[in-house]
Formats: sequence, structure tokens, C-alpha cells
Amino acid sequence: MKFGGTSMAGTERIRRVARIVKRQQDAGHEVAVVVSAMAGETDRLVNFCREANPLYDPAEYDVVVASGEQVTSGLLAIALQALGAQARSWLGWQLPIKTVEAHAKARVDSIDADALIAEMQKGVIAVIPGFQGVSDEGRITTLGRGGSDTSAVAVAAAVKADRCDIYTDVDGVYTTDPRIVAKARKLQHVTYEEMLELASVGAKVLQTRSVGLAMKEGVRVQVLSSFIDDDAPAADTIPGTMIVSDEELEGMDMERQLITGIAHDKNEAKITLTRVPDKPGAVANIFGPLAEAAINVDMIIQNVGRDKGETDVTFTVPAADLARSMDLLEAAKDQIGFNRIIPDTNVAKVSVVGVGMKSHAGVAATMFRSLADRGVNIQAISTSEIKVSVLIEEDYTELAVRVLHTAYGLDAVEA
Amino acid sequence: MKFGGTSMAGTERIRRVARIVKRQQDAGHEVAVVVSAMAGETDRLVNFCREANPLYDPAEYDVVVASGEQVTSGLLAIALQALGAQARSWLGWQLPIKTVEAHAKARVDSIDADALIAEMQKGVIAVIPGFQGVSDEGRITTLGRGGSDTSAVAVAAAVKADRCDIYTDVDGVYTTDPRIVAKARKLQHVTYEEMLELASVGAKVLQTRSVGLAMKEGVRVQVLSSFIDDDAPAADTIPGTMIVSDEELEGMDMERQLITGIAHDKNEAKITLTRVPDKPGAVANIFGPLAEAAINVDMIIQNVGRDKGETDVTFTVPAADLARSMDLLEAAKDQIGFNRIIPDTNVAKVSVVGVGMKSHAGVAATMFRSLADRGVNIQAISTSEIKVSVLIEEDYTELAVRVLHTAYGLDAVEA
Repeated sequence: MKFGGTSMAGTERIRRVARIVKRQQDAGHEVAVVVSAMAGETDRLVNFCREANPLYDPAEYDVVVASGEQVTSGLLAIALQALGAQARSWLGWQLPIKTVEAHAKARVDSIDADALIAEMQKGVIAVIPGFQGVSDEGRITTLGRGGSDTSAVAVAAAVKADRCDIYTDVDGVYTTDPRIVAKARKLQHVTYEEMLELASVGAKVLQTRSVGLAMKEGVRVQVLSSFIDDDAPAADTIPGTMIVSDEELEGMDMERQLITGIAHDKNEAKITLTRVPDKPGAVANIFGPLAEAAINVDMIIQNVGRDKGETDVTFTVPAADLARSMDLLEAAKDQIGFNRIIPDTNVAKVSVVGVGMKSHAGVAATMFRSLADRGVNIQAISTSEIKVSVLIEEDYTELAVRVLHTAYGLDAVEA
Repeated sequence: MKFGGTSMAGTERIRRVARIVKRQQDAGHEVAVVVSAMAGETDRLVNFCREANPLYDPAEYDVVVASGEQVTSGLLAIALQALGAQARSWLGWQLPIKTVEAHAKARVDSIDADALIAEMQKGVIAVIPGFQGVSDEGRITTLGRGGSDTSAVAVAAAVKADRCDIYTDVDGVYTTDPRIVAKARKLQHVTYEEMLELASVGAKVLQTRSVGLAMKEGVRVQVLSSFIDDDAPAADTIPGTMIVSDEELEGMDMERQLITGIAHDKNEAKITLTRVPDKPGAVANIFGPLAEAAINVDMIIQNVGRDKGETDVTFTVPAADLARSMDLLEAAKDQIGFNRIIPDTNVAKVSVVGVGMKSHAGVAATMFRSLADRGVNIQAISTSEIKVSVLIEEDYTELAVRVLHTAYGLDAVEA
């Protein structure tokens, strides 16, 4: 079980979480719980580091920010004991949760779960702070913001859990954002691949990295609401969304939808370079500096230029990286040889996602036709095996999502 | 160097502490720094534990409250790096600082300082959270409130420090409380034994346990103000108060005062049991239950009773333990066989302290005569080798302190 910062914000809520956890044990499960810091606490600690030195040492930053989850894990163990349960905390360095790579953005390498499993078998509820681990040098590490989801999946894999329940402030994964489409439906099941595409294009339910890890380790993840009535039955019977493998889903013998969901992402920015020489190496000159700066370029279109031997190149980057991208490209202007650089943040990416499209042609055609019928102009297109994305003018985002939700038959039937 | 919670309250103050520390290194010293949590933070964390469960598990309490010093040690390392110094934090479990006995009130058993010494010799400033250690089982422990002074002395002993500078919100140890006696003088030197008596009777400059440890390990401790100008010269030249051994002080060949200081303590309560049977075992029946409950009985007087075979017994306990003491004594009433129990919190203990009295008679007589001359009635007396304490009515406390400060020639000469 994993609980996020909103669920852990203050002792009253932590005692509520304790009741939800205890009910799982009472239902016959062995339980380990991974917790986030209290909502707002990590921001407070990060600000302290910035105030102490804007160029802070990531190793010491980890010492500071890991304390937020240390506090909530101790408090949840105390609150569980108050309910008569046996419980204790294991910090990242105590298990240990060994990590590799840089401080402040470490990756889980291995978890020694022997002590954990032995104690869980004796009836002890294990409480583990998310987000933190320990380096080979024995120093505290953190996994980067949102890393607690990944901690939960990694612990679930280490104890060979039947299920990893991620309690969050939504009650599952929807066919699209219910704030945009009132008829959005909660999905009972979604595959890892679909969840990865939905997450990476803007459905912010789970950290993308945690879904990748769950897929790799075969951990069955359930997303469900932490705001259920704490007298409700145990989570086995609460309809959250299960994230499972393609094979498991096929074995369920259900009628599959062609398309599972519609995602959108307004945090993209478009850059157009005009009159780039149409010769070998030109594209490398553009994207080399961006790749070195770890800026993630997504959609790329090369337009036919007006003049022979020249072409316009358009691509998207995360909006947060736009200013930096512009600086890097201006610095390489002579080498690239473009005429003008035109930024545009007034764009959004809308995607249709579904494993069903692997075996069905015509998905993209339906998308383009539906949008064209409603006057939505497509600026760029990208596709993967289970996803088709289009870049459109930002003002059309909600319209496009609604049109596609209906076009693929995802609207809930009125009760 | 050790800095308390007031000095560490917020990043602006932590950056100030960094400048004070850096100046010591610039003056040619190898430096380790022990830090408290930000002022108020430990109270906040303790309250969380109480809210989660009033009968909290001390082992989990330690996980929660130790985080306060973890945060400030990381932040101070960052702030030192911002000044161009090499610095890193070592948490209690990382050195390790091994402790024994119960959680929430552990004692330092040993410190492995090899890594610390090696890094300090390379010019790295070591930052160590106070108050925390690690148990044999590898769990976080804390030393009890105020334990950071003890951590500092223990680290100083482990690295064989020339000096342990404790920065606090007073600029040294005074002959008495300057708020009561305007002519109180700052002491240049005081012995461990004197400091222990001054601390235990109410001069709240250092935690008593830290002074005992300094005496045992022969650590030279300096008390000085953390509110000095941070452009002032390094601490070698700032006149704080040095706490040293009797032998070192004698070697200084200074004119010793007979009396070093006057202490007072209003946190005492008096209990009188009337008509206790005057027979063997009676006193054991009274003080047995209090000792079992770890209540510290200080002064004891047995009055001659009015009736033959009976006696009144008066003694003092910490005011905070009065209610519990009354309950314990009432519960044992039949066994003890007293008539009435009379509590009195309107009392104060005033003490004169000085190693000089070992070799001088007449110290106590001067005390009693001076107080009697000004109409201060003495309710009880206790003495040690270097201290004479009297119990008086609380309203007379300030008068008594001033009278004694003058009587023993401690008043500062007007400039």
C-alpha cells in the first residue's frame, strides 16, 4: 500500500490511513506501507536548501529532504500501534534500499527484503518511507520528485506482493480527464504500456518511472482513492483501476475497446527554425546541442522549404525547457545555418491510446477525420504502436478531447 | 563547535553560523560542528508523536524527532559549501555514534571517529546532528531533550579536540543570574565540579550530563555567545567562560575566589508528612516508592515530633513531580503510617558554589548569618563538598541571591 502527501498531511489524516491499513491486515493480508512526506513538507525542505545555497550539494539536499518521509513513516507506525497492530518503520538505509546514480535523482538498484518478509510473516506491518534509499558509500539518496510511487513498486517487487495498491487523490484511471469530459469512465483495467503512454502524455496519476518498473518486475498495481470511507470494506472489493500485463488482460476474456483513453498535455512548446540548409548533418546540428542538455525533443516535422536546398524544421520541447532551448539554438545559429527561430507555447498535444490499435487499422484516420470535421487544425503528428498524438492550437484542447472521446465510443452510457 | 536551536532557526541564521565556523577554519583549526534542530522544530515533532498516540513507541518517536537535527546538519553543510569550504554531514548512524539504554533517553557509548578525523585532516568541516545516535540493533536513538550538548562533548572527546566551544544565547557563565543581580560578573574559568553544581541548581547554560561527560573525558569546554558579530575575530580571542579541571585551574596561578557563584532554583516543591512513626524502616517506606518512580528527592529533614515515638518528615522533589509524588505517598499511606501530607510549592532553593570552600571553614556560617540579618528564614539545608544550599520562601529568592552575591564579594567593581 502506498499513500501520497495529501493522505499524510497531519496526524488526523495519518490516523485515518492507519485505519485503512489495519483493515487490510484484518482482512488476512500481510502488509507493507510506503509513505510520502506530508503535503507541502518536501517543498519547504527544498526551499531551505535553495536559501542555504542556490547551487546546493545534491548529497546534502538528500539528507535534508529525505527527512520528510522519515517523519511520516515513524508517525504511521505509531498510529498503527495505537490501533493495536504491530508495526515498525524501516528507513531506506536500514533495509537497505540500495540505489545507483546521482544524488537527488537516484535509481533503485536492489532491496534487501529478508528482514521485512520475516517480520511481515510474524504479523508486523512494515512502514517504509518512499523517495529515499542509500548509496554504495552509505549516504542517503532520493529518487527525484514523485519517487514514492517508484519506491512502492520496488518494495512490492522485493516482497513479491500479490498487489501494489497506490492510494491517490483520484479513485482510478479514467478514459480521459473527467474535468473536461463529464462522461469519462473509470477503467477497471489498463495495461502497463497504455498507462505509460497515458502518463507520459499528461494523465498524472502515477509517476511514469513507477509504471515502467511495474512492467519490468510484473507487479500488479492498483490505483484507488485514499478518500474512501475508512469504514468501507477492504481494498480487495473497492473498484479502483488495476494496471496489468497485456497477457493477463487477454486472459480475462473481456470485450476490449479499440481505444482505452484520450490524454492531453498543455506543457509543450513548439519551435520552428526557418530556412535550414537541406543537407546531411543539418538535423544533427539542431538536435545535438539539445540532447547534450538533456532536453527531451518530442514531435519533429521537416517542411518542404520554399526555396530549393532549404527547409523549415519544426519540433516540440517541454515548455519548461523552451527558454534554454532557444539559448542553445541561438548559440549554434552559425553552425546550423537557420534564418529565423519562431517559438510558440500556444500548443497542446492530444493523444489516443490503446493496445487494441495494434491489430486494427484506421485508428489514425478516424482521429484526423473527427478533428477535421470540427475545424481542429493539426500542426504535427507522432505515432507509436499503441498511441497516435497530434499537436493542435491550445485553445482547441478541450474540444478535441471531447470529440475524440465520443468518436471512439468511450462516453459512459447514461444510468 | 556546537550551536543550539536559536542559532539554527532558519536559513539566514544558519548562513551566519556558517560564517562563524568558516572563520575558525580560516584561523587554522580543524573543525567539527554539532548542531541542534531549528528552535521549535523538536516541539513540533514531539507533538506529532503525541497526536498519533499519547503512548507513543519511543523507538518510532526517535525516528521522528531525530529528523530535526538531520535537516539542520544538511543545511549547514550546504551553507558552508556556499562560502567555499569543504563540508559534509555525518548522521548518527553513519559515523556511527553508538548508544546504549532506552530509546528517547539513550546514552552515548562510543563514537567511531576514524573517518571524521581523516576527513577533517583533509580540510573537510564535519557537520554532525546533535541529540541522535544508533542502537546495537541499528535503529535511530535520541539522547533526551537538551542532548545536543552531550553529543558535542562526546564528539570532542572522540576527535581529541583541543576545545569544545558551545555557542549559546548567553555569552558565558556568570557569578549569578544577571537579571537578578546587575553586578553579576562573567567568570573566565569555572571547574567541572562547580559547573555541575551550578547547572543542577538552576544555571541553565549547559545540560548537566554534558558537563559530567566533559569532566570524565577531560574535554575543555568553552561557553560563548552565538550572537557575536560574525565579523568578529575567531573564538580563540573571544572571552567566553572556560570549563576546566581543578588541576588546570590551579596551574593558572590566579587568585581564587572562595565562592564562584550563587545559583537559585524555583522548580522545587516541599512535602511534609506529619506524625510518621519514629521507628526503623519508616524512612525506607517513604522514599522507596519515590525512588522506584525515578523521582529525585533532594533535601530531607526529620523534625522532632510533638509526641514521643512520632516525627515529621520534610523533603523536596521537582515541582513537576509533585502531583505524582502525592499520589504515590497517598497510595502508601497505610504502610508509612503518617497523619497528614502537606505540599508547598512556594519555596526556592538558593545555593552558594565554589571549590574554594573545600579548604575554608565558615562558608556556611556566613551564608546563614547574612540571610538571617535580612530576615530570610531557612526551611532546610543541604551541603556537598563545594556547595551549600538552603530552602527558603519563594518570594525571598531575589533578595537572598543579592545578599549572598554581595556577602561573598562577587559584585563587579564599577568601571
